[in-house]
This record gives sequence, C-alpha cells and structure tokens, in this order.
Amino acid sequence: MQAPAMNVKQLEEFLVREFSQFFNPQNGLTIEDVRHSGARVRQGYNPLFVRPGGTISGPTMMALADFTMYVAVLATIGPVPLAVTTNLNINFLRKPEQRDLIAECRLLKIGKRLAVGEVMVLSDGMDEPVAHVTSTYSIPRQS
Amino acid sequence: MQAPAMNVKQLEEFLVREFSQFFNPQNGLTIEDVRHSGARVRQGYNPLFVRPGGTISGPTMMALADFTMYVAVLATIGPVPLAVTTNLNINFLRKPEQRDLIAECRLLKIGKRLAVGEVMVLSDGMDEPVAHVTSTYSIPRQS
Amino acid sequence: MQAPAMNVKQLEEFLVREFSQFFNPQNGLTIEDVRHSGARVRQGYNPLFVRPGGTISGPTMMALADFTMYVAVLATIGPVPLAVTTNLNINFLRKPEQRDLIAECRLLKIGKRLAVGEVMVLSDGMDEPVAHVTSTYSIPRQS
Amino acid sequence: MQAPAMNVKQLEEFLVREFSQFFNPQNGLTIEDVRHSGARVRQGYNPLFVRPGGTISGPTMMALADFTMYVAVLATIGPVPLAVTTNLNINFLRKPEQRDLIAECRLLKIGKRLAVGEVMVLSDGMDEPVAHVTSTYSIPRQS
Repeated sequence: MQAPAMNVKQLEEFLVREFSQFFNPQNGLTIEDVRHSGARVRQGYNPLFVRPGGTISGPTMMALADFTMYVAVLATIGPVPLAVTTNLNINFLRKPEQRDLIAECRLLKIGKRLAVGEVMVLSDGMDEPVAHVTSTYSIPRQS
Repeated sequence: MQAPAMNVKQLEEFLVREFSQFFNPQNGLTIEDVRHSGARVRQGYNPLFVRPGGTISGPTMMALADFTMYVAVLATIGPVPLAVTTNLNINFLRKPEQRDLIAECRLLKIGKRLAVGEVMVLSDGMDEPVAHVTSTYSIPRQS
Repeated sequence: MQAPAMNVKQLEEFLVREFSQFFNPQNGLTIEDVRHSGARVRQGYNPLFVRPGGTISGPTMMALADFTMYVAVLATIGPVPLAVTTNLNINFLRKPEQRDLIAECRLLKIGKRLAVGEVMVLSDGMDEPVAHVTSTYSIPRQS
Repeated sequence: MQAPAMNVKQLEEFLVREFSQFFNPQNGLTIEDVRHSGARVRQGYNPLFVRPGGTISGPTMMALADFTMYVAVLATIGPVPLAVTTNLNINFLRKPEQRDLIAECRLLKIGKRLAVGEVMVLSDGMDEPVAHVTSTYSIPRQS
C-alpha cells in the first residue's frame, strides 16, 4: 500500500496558505484521515446550514464533498494548487440530521490529466449515507 | 404561453419567509425574471467567493444554480416549501470573472413527481457560460 | 440481512418473459448473483462491441450498468415491470480489455418513489474498474 | 460564424472507415446536419429498440447521444479517431414514441483537453424532448 504524498499536518498547512477562504477555523472543517487515494473530512454542525423541514442545505454537502475530493487528490499527487473540478454529480439520498457531516472520499482513477473519485456523505453517527457524489478534477500539466 | 404561478414579488415574499437562511439581503441574490418553466437569478459579487487563481468557488455556482432551479419550480407550480433536490450535475466550463454571476434556468420537464431543468451560469457581461447544470427536484404529493 | 425478493431463477424467468428484447441468449448476459440491495451481471464478450483503439464501446457498458441496476431493483422490491430509469451518470475510467465485462451494483437508497444505486464495471479478471455509474429508477405506485 | 472542420460527406467517409461497427447501413443512423460546435443525427426506428410499455430502450438513446456528441466534436476540431467519452449524464424525460429519434448536439466548450456538450433527444415530429444529455470528451494531444 502506497504512502500518501502529504499527511494531515502538511495538508492543513498547505490549505491554510492556499485556500484560506474556505479552509479556516470559522468553517468548522477537520481533515480526519488521508491516505493514498482517499480522505475523510468532518464538517462541524452550524445552525446556518439548516433549511426548511430541518434539513442541512444541499450546497453545504456539495461544498464538503468537493473539498474532500480536493484533499484526496492532494494526498495522492502532492501539492497542486490549481487542480480544478470539471464535473460534479450529486444524488441526495436522505434528510441529514442536525449534526456534523462526514465525507469519505475514494479515488477511482488518478490519471495524468484527470482524477475521478466518489464521496459518501453521512450524518455523524448514522449508518446510511445522506448523499453520494462523483467528481472529476483536472490536473494541470507539471512544468 | 402560460403565466407563471408566482411573480417576482410573490416569490421574494415566499422565500424571505420560508428560506431566509439563504435568501436574505446579505447573500446578494436578486430574482431578475421568472416565467412559466424558467427563471433568471443574479448573484452579486463578494470577495469571499474568490479562490486560488482568481476564480469564483465552485460551491458558489452550485448554490446559485440550485436556488435558481428552485425559483423556476416555484414559478411554475406555485408555493411548495418542501420540494427537494434529488440530483444535481454540474460541468465547470471556464474560469469565472470576479464579477456578478447570472444563472438562467429552463425546466425540461414538470411532472407530478419530478421536475428536471438545466441552468446556464454566466459571468455578468460575458457571452460564454462558466458552468452548466442539470438538476432534478422531487415534488411532494399535494394533500 | 434481508433476503432478496426474487432469486436468480425467478429473475431469469421474469426477464425472459417481460424483457426478452434485451435479456435473451444472443445477448450474452448472465445474472451471477443477487441479494437484497444488489446484483452482479456478466456481459459475455462479443467482437461487435469493439471500437477504434481496441476498446469496448461505451454504450455496451451503459446498457450493462442500466440492466444490472434494474436487476438489483427487482431483487429488492420484487417484480415491477414498469420501473424506469430517470437518470444515469457514467464516468469512463480505463480502457476495457477485449474480454467479458462484470457489473456489480449496490443500491444506496430504496425509497417509495425512487431507487438510487451505483454500479462498478470491470473487465473480467482485472482489479481496477473500467467505468463507474450512478443511476436512479422511478418506481411506479403500486395499485 | 466559423465553418465546420468537416462536412457531412467527409464525416460519413471518416466514420465508415474508422467506426463501422456502429456507423453502418444496418444501424439506421443519418447525419442530418453539422456545423462548428454542433450536429444533428437521426436514428431510424427499429422494432428491436422497443421495451416493456412500448417505449424505446434507454441504451438506444444513450448510444445515439454519445455518437452525436462525437460527430459534433469531429465537425469542430477535425478527424480525431481516439477522442473518448469520459463522462455522460442522461436525464430521461418522457416516454419516446415508436418512431425515429432525433439528437441535436451543441458544444458548450471546446478546450485543448476536454470538449463538453449537451444533447437533446426528441421523438421525430414531437416538440418536447424525451431525454437530455451532457457529455465530456477527452481530446488526445496532437503529435
């Protein structure tokens, strides 16, 4: 089993430096685990995420999944600031609880140009996923 | 041509009442146009949306597209607080400028259970779209 | 663990009767395994599937994934002839070999109206998937 | 308005030579129109396409949309045998009639690495689409 290209501490330092608009203490994000081809990120609960019917907003789940995919790509190929999402597809499966969200990403392909992965989003402590995401990142050519 | 079920003023009142966590003066959203089967919404520029490389964050575009789709559904079938997104697919096409975003939604199907639509997202004043979204809403059974 | 609503033999009889345009001896499909919430189907190799560059055609993989999802839905909720696909999203990951394809489906949600699942498509005997599919079926109301 | 890189006759010759497993007289496909960034293809009706409930099979529509996207890419960038689909997302909107299908493709982006487009699929003579597709092709580096 291959080692990750960056560990949690290296990822946090990179993201605070390059991506602080999203990865900052106010946003309640914690990188819980990284490995070659995967990552798990926790989104702390915030009442601002709640929507009619007591659910968590879809964009909160989309943003978390997109970020977790980015963390998994960095953990696998190392620091690439300008990797960008080209496609994201999300299926909303169940109403999330008013608690933390956990996103678990697994990369399905890491090519020279494209990385493709899937992300399961769960309400903390629940077994069944609240959303499932597949996503593609475009990887800039290394100079 | 069928009239919309709600006009812009009625939509604003409904959304302020039912959806104020997202539709509020701080968020910079303006419903510019609604019709039966469509809507156009503007997202005012906010420096918080900017990401590495000078782009606007993907989740900003996803949230705008999802909201515009919801507005188009409401404009077509009337006030349905608990319609929920079941699927959203986004292709990111070009780097957005640091200016307002415009989302233009067109519904492709309005069934009894599901509404399907597409949304073009543009940087204000530019011709070519920055993102394209297709999305499905589940419509609760009317009692 | 819940038992499947139909076993392989019952599924074959149902599909030969209701779906013989696709499920017939010429098509080379074998239902290898079913369970509550899942199914595995093999598509026998056919030189007609080959495309430029020695790959298997995308539509062959899409048709197999769609069928495997249908088998998983039937295995879970029983014989429902008119369940229909509403959405299918496929990511092509690697060039398939010129050999059988295996599709492994897992349902992520089985609701009253919608079933959502994912399907991994592999070249027989290889470890890494050639395609990944997510799909939604609409389930007709039972009378 | 830019001229297409290949006209209908040139496309037919190229496809008969490079892609005859799919583009051949038995398959009932007609390229009706091409332009820079778009194409329209007709799929002649075949009773083999029919499925339970009198509908046309989903894979028939997926294969047609994928092919029409390929034609539009070729019409725009010229003969590239090894361009491959990386993602395809389809929403099935209405039950198709038992008649020809028409696919109308419009490219949304033609980059150096990726082309993204959307395809509307209609039953011949009907106004409302039976399916909507978005698709991404990966374009090989030119040597």
